[in-house]
This record gives sequence, structure tokens and C-alpha cells, in this order.
Amino acid sequence: MTALEYGKDIIVIDAGLTFPGDDMPGVDLVIPDVTYLEENKDRVRAIIITHGHEDHIGGLPYILKDINAPIFGTKLTLTLIENKIKEHKLNNVSLNCVKAGSVIKLGCFNVEFINVNHSIAGAVGLAITTPVGVVFHSGDFKIDFTPVNGDTMDLSRIADIGEKGVLLMLADSTNIEIDGTTMSESVVKDTLDHVFADNMGRRLIIATFASNVHRLQQILDLAVKYKRKVAFSGRSMINIAESAAKIGELHIPDNLIVDVEKVKNFRNEEILIVSTGTQGEPMSALTRMASGEFNKVVIGNNDTVVISASVIPGNEKMIYGVINNLYRLGAEVIYESLEPIHVSGHACRGELRVLHSLVKPKFFIPVHGEYRHLKKHARLAQDLGMKEYATLIADIGDTVEFTENTMKFGEKFPSGSRFVDGVGIDGADSFILRERVRLSEEGVIVAVVGLDEYSMQLKSLEIVVKGLSLDQVAIKEMKANLVNTLKQVDLRAMRGEEELTALVKKQVKNFVIRVAKKNPMILTVIMAV
Amino acid sequence: MTALEYGKDIIVIDAGLTFPGDDMPGVDLVIPDVTYLEENKDRVRAIIITHGHEDHIGGLPYILKDINAPIFGTKLTLTLIENKIKEHKLNNVSLNCVKAGSVIKLGCFNVEFINVNHSIAGAVGLAITTPVGVVFHSGDFKIDFTPVNGDTMDLSRIADIGEKGVLLMLADSTNIEIDGTTMSESVVKDTLDHVFADNMGRRLIIATFASNVHRLQQILDLAVKYKRKVAFSGRSMINIAESAAKIGELHIPDNLIVDVEKVKNFRNEEILIVSTGTQGEPMSALTRMASGEFNKVVIGNNDTVVISASVIPGNEKMIYGVINNLYRLGAEVIYESLEPIHVSGHACRGELRVLHSLVKPKFFIPVHGEYRHLKKHARLAQDLGMKEYATLIADIGDTVEFTENTMKFGEKFPSGSRFVDGVGIDGADSFILRERVRLSEEGVIVAVVGLDEYSMQLKSLEIVVKGLSLDQVAIKEMKANLVNTLKQVDLRAMRGEEELTALVKKQVKNFVIRVAKKNPMILTVIMAV
Repeated sequence: MTALEYGKDIIVIDAGLTFPGDDMPGVDLVIPDVTYLEENKDRVRAIIITHGHEDHIGGLPYILKDINAPIFGTKLTLTLIENKIKEHKLNNVSLNCVKAGSVIKLGCFNVEFINVNHSIAGAVGLAITTPVGVVFHSGDFKIDFTPVNGDTMDLSRIADIGEKGVLLMLADSTNIEIDGTTMSESVVKDTLDHVFADNMGRRLIIATFASNVHRLQQILDLAVKYKRKVAFSGRSMINIAESAAKIGELHIPDNLIVDVEKVKNFRNEEILIVSTGTQGEPMSALTRMASGEFNKVVIGNNDTVVISASVIPGNEKMIYGVINNLYRLGAEVIYESLEPIHVSGHACRGELRVLHSLVKPKFFIPVHGEYRHLKKHARLAQDLGMKEYATLIADIGDTVEFTENTMKFGEKFPSGSRFVDGVGIDGADSFILRERVRLSEEGVIVAVVGLDEYSMQLKSLEIVVKGLSLDQVAIKEMKANLVNTLKQVDLRAMRGEEELTALVKKQVKNFVIRVAKKNPMILTVIMAV
Repeated sequence: MTALEYGKDIIVIDAGLTFPGDDMPGVDLVIPDVTYLEENKDRVRAIIITHGHEDHIGGLPYILKDINAPIFGTKLTLTLIENKIKEHKLNNVSLNCVKAGSVIKLGCFNVEFINVNHSIAGAVGLAITTPVGVVFHSGDFKIDFTPVNGDTMDLSRIADIGEKGVLLMLADSTNIEIDGTTMSESVVKDTLDHVFADNMGRRLIIATFASNVHRLQQILDLAVKYKRKVAFSGRSMINIAESAAKIGELHIPDNLIVDVEKVKNFRNEEILIVSTGTQGEPMSALTRMASGEFNKVVIGNNDTVVISASVIPGNEKMIYGVINNLYRLGAEVIYESLEPIHVSGHACRGELRVLHSLVKPKFFIPVHGEYRHLKKHARLAQDLGMKEYATLIADIGDTVEFTENTMKFGEKFPSGSRFVDGVGIDGADSFILRERVRLSEEGVIVAVVGLDEYSMQLKSLEIVVKGLSLDQVAIKEMKANLVNTLKQVDLRAMRGEEELTALVKKQVKNFVIRVAKKNPMILTVIMAV
């Protein structure tokens, strides 16, 4: 998420989410902290969305509850957003459809939408005319000279904008470590055609991202060519295919689609199953097929499974687990490390050089990538002739201030992540996360001490152990030790519960560290009874 | 771990460990379940170790407690094992040094050790003559025609063994998905030489695996060439370098090494720091340098950090986190995706073809790899002319029975993983792990109900919430609800504590699901007071 601010006007670009890391147990989603925008919501003129991927639209339903600004995006983007809005039962959301070439006025900003190529249809870059100069934002992009649908990235228009002078460029850094250029989506068509031809007598299952409608179109076209019916599997696959077809972004021939329930009625060579689950997501159709828990599609020797996607870093173990299980069930599996059945949606170094040389910005801020990527993208700009002072790497929470001739860091503002956890949005703060991680690594012991309310004598003691390997003998010993200690101290002389609690905790902790080398969370309840 | 059994004799090959996955919170290490060997420990003639990597020796200290068989390995292997034995304070371990070419008799088995190349010195393959034929085990290997120390893999001896007839081959499948051949260790020397030459005025920090003594030797040689002193950083780096030097596997010139405490006394161009932490391990020297928590080495603009290792799958986020932090501190970072500063220790398809064509086994079982790798390695053997029935993929717990002419699955035996968790070895069974995962994802609520021991009236109620986002208002409401319910029911009419416990759990659960969409672990303690 990026925001531009001038005078009384703010415009926001993209509103995504990320998925929680292993250090965030129990968290469902991570969205940006938009405290600053909430405090200035009357000045937010629009939220502009460059394309419909989750990391660009996923935060919207949460953010819109507070900041109900009009949303601008292309047709497919808005369709995907609409699905989310329905799911979250939001009302009064203003969705405004634009297309490549559209120019809209938002307060003091003029925003022009420019066609770019990406792994989803309807992706755009932005040329935003501000009172101090033009800001060019590439969005997520690649340059595909042979796209399977739609046009090549509008390099002529970008050249024109560059000629007229650009103050600042923000550009995608995802593939900065890869030399050359990203392969065209057409390459996938050729590979998939071979896969269809080589697997004539076998059942075919292709897993891909539901939102990559160009890929989906190629797959459907090949199904027609090779006379297979198509069954969609997985809720998001069905929803997105239907939505994309409705707005004309996906052409689904009549009588091509069959219900996945009916797959069993077809011979292997007559059917193609198109499924979600390219990342080995635990509940996805493909993962359930691989573990034999999906009774609509039972995998066997006659199946060839194609995973037409790359592995998103962090998902390696899950997806390779799925692949191993598919092999165990006897299937053939075709995946990225073996064949070019997927191409990236992001520009490599060669394409980035083209963009820089066309836009020729006065200042440059690399975006979309880890710090190492941003650093290298800034270097690439410097190698092409930019001065070091003209490039800047901004972290989340930084503001950068511009005049017509200067760029400098402004004040930091409140930023970071918000965790969506159950129904809470701000819910899982880092304190609660630390508690959870501790619980999961060390377990928990509850000690309930019952004291006679008059004599303050120990009356009863209960110990509960969870997530920790302590046998009954050890628990009995710990209990006996604790009873002993508590009988020896004068509980009436203690300064309140804190002192008693501390004593119980210390004793339990030392015992567990000694016998089990573990340091569990110890919860003590003192009850006067 | 593999075991060969014939008549009264059993020999074990390798005894490694793996590190716990994200689904095993709190587990320190995972070692093989050796129930079968424990039950037959009097028949175990030896544990033969092919090389000293953790996944081949790490399980030994745990397994030796029950099965104290003599251990056979080469010099460096035994040195690394010795370090472990000391750490675990084990006595009476029989360590027997062999070298490439050694032949030992173990019951009915004759075991010959054969030199192979790998990313650790002293790696061997095995040719084991059994009463029904020769078993050839490659160990982890690659074919390095220009090794930096030691000899090329003994292909002549392997050819000889193959000519005489091999019943069964077991061979490394790690790199089966990579065509061609693995690069020689010498390539790294050239790259590192360039790195030294290009960073003359800067401080150099190289992170590498401590056990890769050939790599370490190259780095030390370059330090001498470029007139830098060397400081080792990280406990395992210091220990292993010392041990390897003691047995002559590593040559450390006099006056080369300085204490890491003294690094600050040297100018940038005079010092090289050799560190652990190639995988971004949280407590390693490099990770602490990158997060600014290692006061002996403070990273800045004048540092070039080289990570001379590949990323082990699953460690991506950690190591890239370290790299991002190093860049943030101003350092230059050189890592595998940018330069050939690491080569694999495992054979690619080209080398595997060479091995198969020399050994020409009657039967083949691929080892070392995930199921997908084993499957593809079996295919490679078939492509080279083996019949499908002559290859077999064995899972953990399978036994395979041989005669001179047949191979078939035998009975399964108890197998799987044992978790090392604190001091317990069998400790963290899956039940406890499930408890921990539940705790970490959903949190825990403790409800302590105090009842008057005579009247059975509710006397007090305490609620403790951990790892869960519930505000005080919600907790108060939950408590009030519960008090209400407990006052309305006739506690004396209940059949024991179970019924009351179930009632409390149900009420708390329903409340939390409703207000927080969470399903925490609920611990109830009933106390008659």
C-alpha cells in the first residue's frame, strides 16, 4: 500500500494482505496498519487498485469498514473485489470501473491508467500528475510481447510520459535478481499442448491460480482442442471462473464444463480437472486429492497432475508434500522444476532496464520486494546513470517528501501490521503472539492453590499439565514438593497473593527445568475457600 | 538409517537426525525409532557411518544409550562423533577408524570402504559382501574430478566391484532433478579468489558450514594469500576447526588465527571472519551480527558478507531475513543466487548415470531424497535398461528380502520418528504435539470453580486467559454468564465432576466462539472448598 498526499488530498494505491508466518500461530491474515488514513479519512479521495491479486486487494474488506473511499480499478479487478465485498456483507461501497487509457481527477491528482502485462488480466500501471510533477507507478508488471489475451504493455504511452518528464518512479522489484527477460505466457501454451498430446489416454488434472484467467483460457482452449470436458474443483476456482466469464474476460464454450461430482462418469481421456491448490494449501482440492481425502476425485495410476504455478517462498514443504503423496498414489506429476509450465508475472532485469530508460525519472523508489531486492533495484538504476541521491529505499512507515527538485524523508507515521484473528482485527498483538509461541514450545502448567479463607492454611492443590511431557510420577512429586513448601511458609505473613504466586511459580519452574528441561508457562490461581 | 540382516547378524548404516518441522513446536530434534534394533541389540555387530554430517551421525548419542555397538568410520567422521559423545557424557563407546580401502568382517558381512567425494572430508561408499551377494551403498556422494583435497571418487574400484557382480545398489537421489553434473569444489575457490581480490579494502565475513573442511581450507589459503588474519566465530566453527586441525584434515598456518574478541584491533583489510549461520539459525553468529546483537562484530558499510552455502529447503525465510538485515546495516552481501560461491555435495543425473553403468546391479533401491526423488531415480535406472521389477522404492519401516535372484517386500516393522524434547526422548508424542499446536493457534482458558464442600454451592470462580485476544469486558461477561448458569443448576444432583466440567467447558467454548471466533483449549479445575 502506498499513499500520495498533497494539501487536502490523499489517494491510496492498493490495499493488500499477506499470510501469517510460522511465528504467528493462529493468525488468519495480516493487513496493513492504516491508523494514519483512519485519522484523515475525510481527505482520502480514492483507493486505486492496480490489479486483483490478494496482495493488492485482500485488505480492502477490513479497511473499507473505516475508510469508505471510492475504489477505482479495471473490470476483472472490480469483479474480484465485488466477490469479497459480498462475502463480508459490506454495503455502500463505491466501485468505479476504469480501463487502460482512462484518466480520472481525484482532488489535485490526475490519474492515468496504463496497460501492463502480469499474471492476471486487467493489470495497470499509473501515471499520476501531481502539483509538483508526475509520479509513475509500474504496478506489478512484465513486458509480454506475445500475450495470449489483451495487449502488450503500453510502452509507447510510457515513452511519451517519460519524454514529458517524470518526477518519481515507483517500480516492481520482485525479479531483480534474475537476468534477462521473463518468458511470455505463450510459452506455457506450448508446454501445456505437449502435455495434452503426451497424455492422450490418461486423465489430466491441472492445478493453477484461479485468478490467472489468461492461463485458464489457454487450458480451456486446449481442452476443446483435445476433446476433453472440464470440471472445476475448489471454491475459488469455480467462483472466479464464473465471475470472469460473466464479464467476458474468460470465454467458456457451451457444454464444456461438467460438475466435478460427475467426473466418475467420464473415461480418463475425456476429462480434465482444473483445480486450486498450487501451494499445497491444507484445505485445497489438490491437497485433499493427494492425501486420498477427496472422494470426488480418486487419484491413481492413470492420472497426470500438472502444477502450473511456481512455489511461493515458504510453501516448499507443503507443496512438495503434496507432490510426494501424488507419486505415492501412482500418479505422474509435472511441476516447475521439470518443465516450463509456469512463467513469472514479474519483470526481470532486462525489462526493468527498458522501463527505466523509457521513464527516465528524476527520482526513483523501488517497490515490491524484500529489502535485498529494493537495494539491488536501486543499484540497477544507478548503473543506468541515476545519481545515488536520486534513489531511495523506503521502509514501511516512512514518508518521503517531494518538491519539483528535491526528495527527502519526512516524519515517520504509525505503521506496521494488523492481525486478523478470529473476529478481532487488532486482536492478536505481539504480546498475545508471544504467549502463543511460548505455549506451543514449552506447554502450560496450571497450579490452583486452595487456601482456607480464615486460617490461610493450604486446603487443596490441583495441577493441570498440557503440551508437556511429564509423567504421573513426576507430577505427583512436583505436587508433594509444593505442598511441603506451602506448609512450611507462613502464608498469613505474606504480602498478598503476588508473593504466594511468585513462590508457586518459582517452585514449579525449577522442578520442571530440572526433570524435563522445559520452561512452561505457569498459571497460578489462588483461591481462598 | 539402513540395516542389513542375515541369520544372526545385523549391521546398521548411518544414524542421523532431522530438525523438527513447523508442525512440531518445542521439539529439539527428531531421531529414528529404533525399536527393532533395541529388541535385537545383541545381534547388532556394528554401526557403520558413511560420513560426519548431522543427518548421518546426529542420532548416535541417543541410540548408543540402548544399542552400544562398535562404530566404524573414517578419521574426520569419528572426530565429529567423538565431540558428540563427550557432550553427552557417554562412556564405553567403541570407535573404530577405517579408511578408504579398508575391509572389515562383521559377522557374516564383509564391508569394504570406498572413497567418494562429498561436501565433507572422509566420505565413503560401502561394498558389503553378504551370503546372497554384494550390496553397494553409495553414501552421499558426487564425482569431483578436481577435488581441492583428497582423491577423486574411486571409480576404478567401483568398476571392478561392478564387474564381479552386485546384487543390490542403494544410491543417493538428492539431485536427481538436476541434469548434467555437479560443479567441482575448485569452482568455489576461483569465485572466492575473485571476492578477495574485489574487496581489498573491505572487511570480509564468510559464513560456511563448519564441517565442510575442504571449503574451510580454501578460505584459509586465500586468507594467507591476501594477507588477512582469520577469526572464527560460532562455537561449532571453533570446535570443528580445532578437531579437524588436530587430526591433520585441516592445515591452519601458525599465527593465522586471532580471537574474535580482537577483531576490533584490526583494520578492515587485515581481517577475515569465518562464521556459522548459513541457514539463518536464530542463535548463530551471523544472525546475531545481522540484527546488531553481536557486539564482537558490528556490521557496517565496510563489510562484505559472503554466504558460502545453499539454502536448505524450509530455511528460506530465515536466511533471507538475515540477508535483508545485513543490507539494512549497509553491508554488501554475496549469496548463492548471485554467484557460484557454493557447490552441491550430491551427484546430478549425469553422475548417477556413470555410477549405474559401473555398478550394474541386479536390483536397485534409490535412497536419500523425498519420494518424488526416489521415484525419478528409479526411472533413471529403468531408462538405463533395468526392468521395472528390479527397482523398488522403500518407505521408512519397510523391509526388503533378498535371495541371489529375487527381491521382495518383507514384513513391516515398528518405525517412524522419536522426538527429543527437553530431556525426554520418547517424550513428545503426537498427542502432546497436538496439544501444543492447539494451544498456539487458539490459546487457553483456565476456569477454576470453587464449591463449598458441604453445600456444593458455587463459592468462587476464577478465569485465566492466555494466548487469546479477549478484552476485560468480554471476560467479565463470560464470568457473569457462567456464574448465572452454575447458580441455576443443582450441583448436588450432578453425577460427579465430569458433568460439571463438561457444562463449564461447553459454556465457555460457546461464548468464545461467539465473541472471538476462536476455539481455545479450556482447562477446568473444580475445587471443593
